[in-house]
Amino acid sequence: MRPRNLLKSLSVITFVMGCSMIFPVIAGVVYGEQFIPFALLMLTVLGGCGSILWWLRHHDANLNLREGALVVTSVWLVLGLIGSLPFVIYDSTASFSDAFFETISGFTTTGASIMSDIEALPKMILMWRSTMHWFGGMGIIVFSIAVLPMVGNGAMQLIRAEGIMDEKLTPHIRDTAMMLWKVYLAFTIANAILLYWGGMLPFDAINHAFSTIATGGFSTKNDSFGHYAGSDAILWITVFFMILSGINYLAHFKLLKKDFSGYRTDEPRLYLLLFVTISLLAGLMIFRDTSIDLPFYDSMKYAFFTIASIMTTTGFAAIDYVDWTNAFGIFIVMAMVIGGCAGSTAGGIKVIRYVVLFKALGVEIKRMVHPRGVYIMMMDRRKITPGILTAMLGFFALFFCTNAVLIIYLSMRGLDLTTALTTSLAMVGNVGPGLGLVGPMENYSFFAWYDKYILSVAMVIGRLECYTFFVILTREFWKRF
Amino acid sequence: MRPRNLLKSLSVITFVMGCSMIFPVIAGVVYGEQFIPFALLMLTVLGGCGSILWWLRHHDANLNLREGALVVTSVWLVLGLIGSLPFVIYDSTASFSDAFFETISGFTTTGASIMSDIEALPKMILMWRSTMHWFGGMGIIVFSIAVLPMVGNGAMQLIRAEGIMDEKLTPHIRDTAMMLWKVYLAFTIANAILLYWGGMLPFDAINHAFSTIATGGFSTKNDSFGHYAGSDAILWITVFFMILSGINYLAHFKLLKKDFSGYRTDEPRLYLLLFVTISLLAGLMIFRDTSIDLPFYDSMKYAFFTIASIMTTTGFAAIDYVDWTNAFGIFIVMAMVIGGCAGSTAGGIKVIRYVVLFKALGVEIKRMVHPRGVYIMMMDRRKITPGILTAMLGFFALFFCTNAVLIIYLSMRGLDLTTALTTSLAMVGNVGPGLGLVGPMENYSFFAWYDKYILSVAMVIGRLECYTFFVILTREFWKRF
Ligand SMILES: [K+]
Ligand SMILES: [K+]
Repeated sequence: MRPRNLLKSLSVITFVMGCSMIFPVIAGVVYGEQFIPFALLMLTVLGGCGSILWWLRHHDANLNLREGALVVTSVWLVLGLIGSLPFVIYDSTASFSDAFFETISGFTTTGASIMSDIEALPKMILMWRSTMHWFGGMGIIVFSIAVLPMVGNGAMQLIRAEGIMDEKLTPHIRDTAMMLWKVYLAFTIANAILLYWGGMLPFDAINHAFSTIATGGFSTKNDSFGHYAGSDAILWITVFFMILSGINYLAHFKLLKKDFSGYRTDEPRLYLLLFVTISLLAGLMIFRDTSIDLPFYDSMKYAFFTIASIMTTTGFAAIDYVDWTNAFGIFIVMAMVIGGCAGSTAGGIKVIRYVVLFKALGVEIKRMVHPRGVYIMMMDRRKITPGILTAMLGFFALFFCTNAVLIIYLSMRGLDLTTALTTSLAMVGNVGPGLGLVGPMENYSFFAWYDKYILSVAMVIGRLECYTFFVILTREFWKRF
Repeated sequence: MRPRNLLKSLSVITFVMGCSMIFPVIAGVVYGEQFIPFALLMLTVLGGCGSILWWLRHHDANLNLREGALVVTSVWLVLGLIGSLPFVIYDSTASFSDAFFETISGFTTTGASIMSDIEALPKMILMWRSTMHWFGGMGIIVFSIAVLPMVGNGAMQLIRAEGIMDEKLTPHIRDTAMMLWKVYLAFTIANAILLYWGGMLPFDAINHAFSTIATGGFSTKNDSFGHYAGSDAILWITVFFMILSGINYLAHFKLLKKDFSGYRTDEPRLYLLLFVTISLLAGLMIFRDTSIDLPFYDSMKYAFFTIASIMTTTGFAAIDYVDWTNAFGIFIVMAMVIGGCAGSTAGGIKVIRYVVLFKALGVEIKRMVHPRGVYIMMMDRRKITPGILTAMLGFFALFFCTNAVLIIYLSMRGLDLTTALTTSLAMVGNVGPGLGLVGPMENYSFFAWYDKYILSVAMVIGRLECYTFFVILTREFWKRF
């Protein structure tokens, strides 16, 4: 373990985060708010990190795997502490634990909030919440496309497109990141313009675009997209961009070369199929339920919006579905555990793992009929190796255990089963809202201060696809350093 | 597909089931009930099947895999129809759908009942319910130890002890079955004697022994083991035999040779570890919960009994825990999805699959630290092949899908999330009781008649470990016949 490597890497990430503080500062200037403290904070961060980077300018931070794992884990603590400062400075949260929870929720693109009156906050703070999502989302894409394949993550090994990146991390990570950045930026601009066209004020359009493209979930309105429920254009534009953001960025990547083939692979196909099927079923269910008095089109509209929001783990709400739990709850839970595509900003188990599950199922059924046949599992003309199968099983084990421990803890804290289950899935899956006490129109402020730190850790574990976090807890990891 | 093969196999199974009707007939004689109709039914079944077997006595029913799959699936319809007749004859159920549900629940050792006043039933009918469990449990053991390994089921391939059985089904199935039968009978007798010693009446001791060893769940008392909650001996004896019955019968098998090594393998170890851990946690939780006013020992007693009952998928209840859902529900759901060991009468996902999950996790964590290392997954000094990994994933996919479809269906029928979720797990996992409206002191009579047939199919699918059922729905299966 070379401390300078860690320091330099952490400083680079923090420096970029510091740059992103320009958005809330601009918002402060535009809206005539007290922007000076925020600007000073930004300058301090940039100055501090800049000095470190200047000092280490000749140091070649070529991270090995263990250093990488340590950086991507410890960076959350650094980001969490610095990102909390605006909330503390502007006295926007009741306590530091609240600020920390909100910040981790922002950077992990979870979007779970402890705020009850969002609209009363300064525009700067609103902009900072969206900016954390936007910055975090970009980080996650770079992490999952450029870093995860190198650490033996089954899902990303599978979808990794040859040629786009190489075995070695350092020389290519910058090029990859730059290309991803272009796509990410283009999507955000397109989304903001369309939302503005749909009737949103510019400030809200930019914030919601930041939040949507990062599949984050923070809104500038107290009732989230319920505020825009009257505008079909805004809802459907948001459905479109949420679904787009839930797709693997390697597919978007190919768009730069005007190549649409990335969307015709196994994962996006199953993703869209699941989205449409679940939404249609959920819509029918809402329509049929006599206790929910909604016409057919509205049932479908809210079903598509909600399922898109939960499946992509964005977490926006266009309507309070918490009372619909009988008819609708199972679809929410299913969408929570499915998640988006690997290599996107979405969380959850991710569709690619279901692709492999179903392929395994197909092979097994064939094998049962013809026991002596030889079957090879393929995905997009690529062989699914035993190593990938092991990685899949290992992920399910970790995801299961992480949730089981958290659900037991939350049950012991006195929460009902539905709340405990969906809180855990909402945190580890980076979804944001759940059901019961953490429903879409509720917030997480009622948790005790220590719960908020535990939930923050759960969000980070989920964001790192479990492995990266747990590996640094093993004894092997710390040997031979 | 050779019809005579099917006919002969079905007749053998039905003939043995007919023999088992001797128990209720004896109960009828002893208690001076109207046993004549039951005896006539038994003679009809034995006569009918006997005639077919006599007619086909020179026919060598050497089943191929497809015929085997068709037999073990279609036999449930035959057993369900014939097994329902006693309920119909003695007018014990409100409708035929009720009788059919109760019968399938009996033979699959699910133990979910539609009866509200069990103690008002004739002893014959009570004995028939337990006998269905006992016969079904024996059938399941033979099926999972002698048949499943040959059809490529990953779990059973793993624990299959070499030497005990051969690749070929027919020559050895009878020997294997006879040896298993001895162990099964010995356990049942020991259990009945101990229950009698603990203070049960002989009739109740025999019935509960039948039900316990089969991990069934039908009781002769309206409030199940709540009736015996005052007798610690009876509760702890039952905990012991439930846990014993949830262990792989290949381990019990070795007892015949005074070899205890079967219990020191990976699966029983994890099974016991999970049982003790979950029970202790649940006991602590009950004790700490101020709304449940129970002293420490009683909290532990009910926790161990309930977790043993649910994890082994027996389904007895010593106390009505449905109001404890906040504190206790998550442990129930966890125990439901864990299940017992493969090769026992228990249902659920089964501990062996968790063994493989955790092994995969261990390998992945090692691989992350040393990416160039070569890791081989081993279980009890046996290599876990890619084929087994695929089978595991395939099983999870099927189990997940079966439950998802059933939960959606039940939600659409208007059930709340907790009831829909636990009903599905209770049916597909052959557990019996769930939470909410299907809690341990409730019953399944409130479902519509068509729901009962759907739930019956779910019990059969679960009992056949999903594969065997779904394979006969594929087009490949019916080709080239
Ligand atoms: K989110
Ligand atoms: K059972």
